[in-house]
This record gives sequence, C-alpha cells and structure tokens, in this order.
Amino acid sequence: MMENHGEGENMLKTMYWENGALMILDQTALPLREHYIKAESCARVAEAIKKMEVRGAPAIGLAAAYGVALGALAFAGAPSGWDEHMKTAARALGETRPTAINLFWALRRMENKLQSLYAEYDVTEPSPETQAAFAAALLAEAERMAAEDERDNRLLGAAGAALVPENAAILTHCNAGALATGAYGTALGVVRAAWEAGKNPRVFADETRPCLQGARLTTWELQRDGIPVTLITDGMAGYLMQQGKIDIVLVGADRVAANGDIANKIGTYALAVLAQAHDIPFYAAAPTSTIDLRAGGGGDIPVEERDGDEVRRLGGVQIAPPEVSVYNPSFDITPAKYITGLVTEKGVLSPPNAASLLKLIS
Amino acid sequence: MMENHGEGENMLKTMYWENGALMILDQTALPLREHYIKAESCARVAEAIKKMEVRGAPAIGLAAAYGVALGALAFAGAPSGWDEHMKTAARALGETRPTAINLFWALRRMENKLQSLYAEYDVTEPSPETQAAFAAALLAEAERMAAEDERDNRLLGAAGAALVPENAAILTHCNAGALATGAYGTALGVVRAAWEAGKNPRVFADETRPCLQGARLTTWELQRDGIPVTLITDGMAGYLMQQGKIDIVLVGADRVAANGDIANKIGTYALAVLAQAHDIPFYAAAPTSTIDLRAGGGGDIPVEERDGDEVRRLGGVQIAPPEVSVYNPSFDITPAKYITGLVTEKGVLSPPNAASLLKLIS
Repeated sequence: MMENHGEGENMLKTMYWENGALMILDQTALPLREHYIKAESCARVAEAIKKMEVRGAPAIGLAAAYGVALGALAFAGAPSGWDEHMKTAARALGETRPTAINLFWALRRMENKLQSLYAEYDVTEPSPETQAAFAAALLAEAERMAAEDERDNRLLGAAGAALVPENAAILTHCNAGALATGAYGTALGVVRAAWEAGKNPRVFADETRPCLQGARLTTWELQRDGIPVTLITDGMAGYLMQQGKIDIVLVGADRVAANGDIANKIGTYALAVLAQAHDIPFYAAAPTSTIDLRAGGGGDIPVEERDGDEVRRLGGVQIAPPEVSVYNPSFDITPAKYITGLVTEKGVLSPPNAASLLKLIS
Repeated sequence: MMENHGEGENMLKTMYWENGALMILDQTALPLREHYIKAESCARVAEAIKKMEVRGAPAIGLAAAYGVALGALAFAGAPSGWDEHMKTAARALGETRPTAINLFWALRRMENKLQSLYAEYDVTEPSPETQAAFAAALLAEAERMAAEDERDNRLLGAAGAALVPENAAILTHCNAGALATGAYGTALGVVRAAWEAGKNPRVFADETRPCLQGARLTTWELQRDGIPVTLITDGMAGYLMQQGKIDIVLVGADRVAANGDIANKIGTYALAVLAQAHDIPFYAAAPTSTIDLRAGGGGDIPVEERDGDEVRRLGGVQIAPPEVSVYNPSFDITPAKYITGLVTEKGVLSPPNAASLLKLIS
C-alpha cells in the first residue's frame, strides 16, 4: 500500500549520470514530452547548453562539470596531450553561453580539481595508466557538486521561506526551479520550502517570452508538486500588482555583481521597477556560486543576445514577418537598489551591496 | 511607367463594402496570409469581432456599424417586426466584446440614425416599401463613419507628430495602426504622420502576448510602409528604456474614462509605470469616440477576460500544460497620472483630466 513513493523516487532529476553518459532532461521538449538526452561526449553537453536543452544558471554549471568529466573519459590514452585536450574541452564548454557565471565557476572548480590531481600525483599530465583514475576523480567532483547544489538549494529555500508570508501570492519569472539546478531549485526552492512549512503559497508564473520557461517549465514543475500555479503573460504582471494580487516577487539570478546588481532573464528588470512602484518586496534567490566579485556592477556583466527567430517563431510556427528586425537580449540587469534581498544558501542579504556581499563570500 | 501606385491604391483597407457584403481583412491570419472574410450577415460580423478577425477599438466600432446595416438589409420585408429585428441585431453586436467603448459609440450612432429616419418618415417602423431606403441610409451612415474615421486619424496623426522628436525611437504596444481603425491608425497614425513629415522615426514594437498583435500586425503594417521597425518581446521594453533606447512611448486606447484613466491592451500599464520611472513621455492616441464620460475612472471600465488557451497556446502550438490555470485579462487600466498626453483628432490633452476632457467633448 505504498501510494507515496517517497521524495527520493518522485524527485525531479534535471540530469543524472548513468553508464558513462550524462542523461539530460530535454527542457526544450517540456511540458509536452518528458525525455532524456544521452550525452556521451563533452561536445554533446556543450551543444545541450547552447540549445538550452539544459538551462538555468546552476544547472548549466553542473552540466559543464559533467562535460569536463566526459572530456576526460574520452581521452584516447596517449602518453601526452591530456592537458591540451582538457583545456580544449573546457574552452568548448565555456563558449556556450556568456551570462550565467555558474558555468565559469564550475569550469574553474573542475580546473582546480585537475590541478590538485596533478599535485597529488606530482605530474603535469596523467600517465596512460592513471588517466582513468583522473577521469574518475573528475567525475566524482562533478557528482559532489551536484550533491552540494541540492544541499545548498535546500538551505537557500529554508532561508527564503522565512521571508514568505502565510498564503502569499508569489510572482515568479522564467524558471528558477529544480529544472534550473540539479534539484529543488532556487526561487522555486523558496516556494517549495514555504509549501513544506505549511505556509500555503500560490504562484503566478510569468510565461517568460521568448523561450517560455515559465509557461513550459515552472507550471509543469509546480503542478508536479501540487503547488497552486496560475500562468500569466509577462505584460500582465504589472496589472496584477496594481490590483493587489501579488505579495512578493521571487526570481533567480544568473550573475550577481560585487555591488549587488543582478543579471537575470530578460523581463526581470521591469518586474523590479514595477515591484518598487507598488511597494512589493522583490527577492532574488541564487547560490553563492552565482556571485561574481570581479564584475563591479551590472554594466560589467556580458548580456547574451540570441537568434531573432526565438522571437519570430515558436514551435516551428512563424508568428511574425520572417525578415523583420528583432532585438533579442536573453537577460537584463537589475540594479541592487531594486532588490529587497538576495537569498543564498548562506543566508539573506537585505539588501545586497558591496559590503554585505564581500562579507558573505569571505 | 507607374511604379508608384499612389497612396489610394496601396492603402491598407481593414474592411470595405462590396456587393452587399462587408469584406474584412482577417487579422488572425496576418502576417502569413492576407485574405478577406466576406461577411454577409450581422451575425458574421459579430463573430468576426468576437474572434478578433477584426480588432482594435475604432475598427470594431466601424465593423459594428456595417453589421447594423447588414442587419437592416437582411430584414425579410414583413410589414412589422423591423424595430425588434434591429434591436436584436444591435444587441448581438454589443455582446461581442465589453471593453472598447467605440463599439457602443458606433451602435448608439447607428441607433440615432435610425431614430432620425423614423422621425423623417414619421413612422415607428419602415413600411415594406421603405425598408430598402432605410437600409441604404444606414449603410451610408456606416460609410460616413468610415470616412470620418480616416479623416480623424489623419488629424490625430498630425497633432501627435508635433510631439515626436526628430529621429525618435518610439515604443509601441499591441497594434493601434491602420488595422485597428478604418485606415491610417491612431498611435501608428502619429508614427505615419511623423514619417511623412520627414522626422525619421523608428519603432520598437512590443510583440504583445497573448495575441501577438505587435508581432503579427504592427511589424507587417510598418514594413509595408517602409517605416523601420524592430520587434521585441513585452518583457524587453523596460531594459530598452534603462539603456536609453526609447525616446517616447505611444499606445492606443480602448476607452478613456472621464478622469483621463485609460483602458488599453494588457501590458500598457506596466509600460506607463516604466516610462515614468525613466522620465520617458507616455502618450495615448485615440479618437474622441473612445472617450466615455459615463465612466468616472478606470475602475468603471469593464475589463474583458478571454479564454486561457490564448495563453496556453501560441500560433496553434501547445506551449503550457493543457490543464494549467490561466488568468487572461485582455486589457489593463492606466491611471491618468502616468499619461503625458492624450492625442485626439481635436488636439492633444496634456495631461488628460476631468476638466480638459469635458472641455474637449463639449
């Protein structure tokens, strides 16, 4: 009579390692089809990141870490060339998407792991006999990062849930959920933690054009957990705020600059301005791996521009004149002054600024 | 060697009367197919309004006027029952969409015409012998309204063009163009007039989810006239303002309340708040037939809610879980305090308020 299969079994897996391959839940096919891509090479992982088959700042980082491990496993066992091969693999992964810092954070961590292996073995490259051990150690590091990601999201969720009022209507943008991470989610991790704490939250999910991560992923993910969700178009958010229908805005972040400015999915900035105009708290939720102290402010964060056909077309259907000019930035910058708090696994910064971020990191 | 076919021939016709039918450009098929629906009955016109085959406040009004004429033409020539038949026709047209006041304005004007015919003929209904004359007079009234609409839009355009700086980047929402009127357009009438005056405007067009009137209609219409247009998603508008890329926001209106509040396509309110936050002038353009002095403020304007599948689906493609809850208001309310000016055929109200509106109307 086991009707409840337990959290472990039911839990959404954005990606997992199986039989020498990274299984990636194809997020471009959701919510209509639930299938996993079998990525058996570093190049296939890079392709999945680029095509947004896997997306969300923390998830991109984890996929890249596994991609590095796949790169190591693929090395042909020659006596030299390993280090160059690994650098090429990391470069290919690093050139996929520019804005989310977690990608570069993950690549740096894998590089540090590799350097520590060189030091441990006192070599500049593994010998053919130790290459398998190196690859296994890199894979173990990726698995460790995935486990830490889930642990951190639960910590972050608990910290954020304290900020969520009872019966709150929460506005979200894009998908900062389990699908955007290894598991549990950041902004949706806060929603989950509030739900688990019996606070009875409800979510209004911005559909998030052009790629519709809100319509396709956030709704799907929350429905799967039985958390009430209502889908709206991006242009409706302001009207809901005007009507008093939103208690709190909760978004993710793809990069946090040293002064507390954040880059997040295009449309976030408009929500932040609207939230301030309506005196609604605006929180960004992100693990500390999203903080980039080398970016002084939002202006230092590169904003990816993607193909105009993301706007002109949808699901193979042309919705605008095929040759019309399009501007398609994937992210925007929200200045720190609009951010009520930054929710991390190490606690909440209210507000995030140069001093509070530096203190958190060190 | 007539390469330029002249404005008359090239001019976009949203609808026209031909051989006893109202030909309606099917706006649900644009920009991919350009074809006209032959509406031979009042009921078909009502259906076209409801299904948004014809949309835009002034265009809905004109279609309804023609719909009344079609109702009159269809009367079977019985000695009595005409007046009841005409009331039923007007009711069917009036029940299509609730927000745009131009629909009710047009129906009232046709009713007034009918009453003046009763007075002229000194009857309470036309006799079978005069029914054709009544129908012809109603059709002539609809044709007159269409001609006035175009004339008024040109006046409105000229008044608004004076507000547009040289080389301005203009942000538009939805389609307040020729397609939303009989011809020339309201907000896009201002753009056209600025273009014709050599002011070299450029347009950023919000795609305007859920029905994509910006992506499908505004881009198509402006490209047809050779006016530069760049398509963006609704969530990008704030980021463009932040970057200093927008000089002026120009939208239409579906109803103007006595205090200057406006109802317009969902998403307008957010743009108005964002424009104010960035010190960007925000203008609404609408003929005086859009003013409803019986609505004291925005709260008195009924806001249409449409089927959730407009959000769950896009271009015929399912994009969200089929059963997900959706909130789909078609319009929102922008308080007068956000409106720099209301551009009408009788001049610009800066700002629109109870006093300036009353003076304009009387």
